[in-house]
Amino acid sequence: MTSALPIPTTLDAVPAAVEAALEVFFGRAVPVAADVDPQVGEAGEVVRDFVLQGGKRVRPVFAYAGWLAGLSSSGRELPATGPDSPGAQDALRVAASLELVQACALIHDDIIDRSDTRRGRPTVHRVFERRHIDDGWAGDAAHHGAAAAILLGDLALAWADDMVHGHHPGDATVPGETAPRPLPASVGRVWSSMRTEVLGGQYLDIVNEAGGDESVDAAYRVMRFKTAAYTVARPLELGATLASAPASLIGDLRSIGHDLGVAFQLRDDLLGVFGDPDRTGKPSGDDLVAGKRTALLAVGLARAGERDPALAERLRAAVGRPLTEDEVRTARSILTDVGAVDEIETQISGLLTSALATLGAADMSEPVRTELGAFAHRIAHRTT
Amino acid sequence: MTSALPIPTTLDAVPAAVEAALEVFFGRAVPVAADVDPQVGEAGEVVRDFVLQGGKRVRPVFAYAGWLAGLSSSGRELPATGPDSPGAQDALRVAASLELVQACALIHDDIIDRSDTRRGRPTVHRVFERRHIDDGWAGDAAHHGAAAAILLGDLALAWADDMVHGHHPGDATVPGETAPRPLPASVGRVWSSMRTEVLGGQYLDIVNEAGGDESVDAAYRVMRFKTAAYTVARPLELGATLASAPASLIGDLRSIGHDLGVAFQLRDDLLGVFGDPDRTGKPSGDDLVAGKRTALLAVGLARAGERDPALAERLRAAVGRPLTEDEVRTARSILTDVGAVDEIETQISGLLTSALATLGAADMSEPVRTELGAFAHRIAHRTT
Repeated sequence: MTSALPIPTTLDAVPAAVEAALEVFFGRAVPVAADVDPQVGEAGEVVRDFVLQGGKRVRPVFAYAGWLAGLSSSGRELPATGPDSPGAQDALRVAASLELVQACALIHDDIIDRSDTRRGRPTVHRVFERRHIDDGWAGDAAHHGAAAAILLGDLALAWADDMVHGHHPGDATVPGETAPRPLPASVGRVWSSMRTEVLGGQYLDIVNEAGGDESVDAAYRVMRFKTAAYTVARPLELGATLASAPASLIGDLRSIGHDLGVAFQLRDDLLGVFGDPDRTGKPSGDDLVAGKRTALLAVGLARAGERDPALAERLRAAVGRPLTEDEVRTARSILTDVGAVDEIETQISGLLTSALATLGAADMSEPVRTELGAFAHRIAHRTT
Repeated sequence: MTSALPIPTTLDAVPAAVEAALEVFFGRAVPVAADVDPQVGEAGEVVRDFVLQGGKRVRPVFAYAGWLAGLSSSGRELPATGPDSPGAQDALRVAASLELVQACALIHDDIIDRSDTRRGRPTVHRVFERRHIDDGWAGDAAHHGAAAAILLGDLALAWADDMVHGHHPGDATVPGETAPRPLPASVGRVWSSMRTEVLGGQYLDIVNEAGGDESVDAAYRVMRFKTAAYTVARPLELGATLASAPASLIGDLRSIGHDLGVAFQLRDDLLGVFGDPDRTGKPSGDDLVAGKRTALLAVGLARAGERDPALAERLRAAVGRPLTEDEVRTARSILTDVGAVDEIETQISGLLTSALATLGAADMSEPVRTELGAFAHRIAHRTT
């Protein structure tokens, strides 16, 4: 069930509109959780706050851009963007629901990676671990924190599916609400593929990490599914499919999505080692400490190994354990000196150029082409 | 996208039909997982095998029963049950998708409860822990096992939502398949409420356990949402709503569902302490070892405490730690001697009687009324 929400007319307006849509969803869902028990309502508020208190809304922006691009293709009219436009309401809702998938991915990833902080705040499992300690509860506080975070991530994933289909928990219908328009099967297929791919990419990531596969190939394979498809390509396709875009445009958006998605992750890799903790909300050198098998690390190890096996060994020794500031600096120097940083920057530039070339020739109209191009630049060169 | 599947005409035929529907779904979904990487395909097979190798298909049977009851209400005709009946295909698909929700619930619950076995086999997180050890991988094997099981549970939950809506991952359409009929908003609301309730009930369970709430009230509150609504009441309602059943019947099915669902869980509590390991697939006294806050234990502690605080203390000492066979026997004796077992059996009988009385007066026709009554007896008196 949906109530009319303000419709964004530019990509810059998407994050605020998405947050408003999520507020409405949580306004329905959290009270149903509270009906189970007030403590469950509080847990629902933790999910709500996690989603609303941070994030760049990258996936919703791409989904909405895909929808605008689809509508603008093949000489179509631009959409009616009034609050009574059902197509726009659907697009906004589908875009916003991606933030709930992402909430599950982050909450569960933080358990898996044993991360203490996220967006400058304690991670969800640490919040519940801390509550367990503060309340003097019985049993293993860390295990309790992980258990609570598993269930809250599940709740976010279930809610993502509710929201994308225009449903929400609770028996009551709200006066003035219209029944949701069912998601077309073509859109359902994209949604379905996206979730299988991101979970598959995450699984492959932990298997590669445990198996010690530090190859460049393995890092790119994980990146392709865990990030590129999930963060850019599938969201663009989701929106465009909802707009019944022609196959040629969907093909172009997939290509743009792959290029930008890999560029997004490569920038993430650089920020994970070289980023400013005050801006990223993560500790200095966090990816090294966490032992993430990034492309940056894979390229760095390969290049260091070619130059001097001892150098590769020094870099490898700075992965997957707590590091002093000095050790972080040393690892950064190796990555820079062997040319890994330059190589990743060159790749990002090349991918951005390729994405912009495909965008320039794609079957869509202004202003979405220019706006998407500007967003692509920001994604590839972001500092947070 | 759905292909026509054999349609069950009796409740006894539902489990096999549900398994056939799940086979078809996995036949589409697992290859998409394998496209990410062959290792992800193998993980998808673990989910498939977990779902297909065991389980009583209780939730699908209730969902299908609700659908048949709905169709048989208010003098309606019995459904066309040929393989070309789209309503029957929808009912089967919705019923089968409950097994994927259940797979997520069990896989994640087993991490949370630190269970080693499920249905006589190693739990999913233990399978991946073992593989990690056998392959001599780096890092913490138990943590890796939990991480893999978190992601596989997520995959099962995502697939549940795909299946209920008639979607599946993958870009290809299959020749001869028809587009799925969208789930009505009324059904979506039930599906949505059910998932929020079961996750809320599970969350409440771990909070009560950590907080040491051993009250009878707390145990019944968890039971109401974690089991009764999720296992019986909501599945019945899901099917009946899909059949556009009248509100009076849905009200009756909710009442039947609550009674049978609580009876189901109370039987589970008895089997968890007194069950035959060869039949239940769980070790002797498993619920005691696991420290589950069951109604049986809550009643036992309350009654023992009334008789003699030292007796309650002896029972409490047998909860949440490894036990010898002698210690299990002692705990069983206390539960029996204080009358907790009799009280739970009496409650089961009373709940079954109440459910059957509501069933007898409910607006549905034969044969579903008799079949549902027979299934209710089996649920309340099962030994596995």
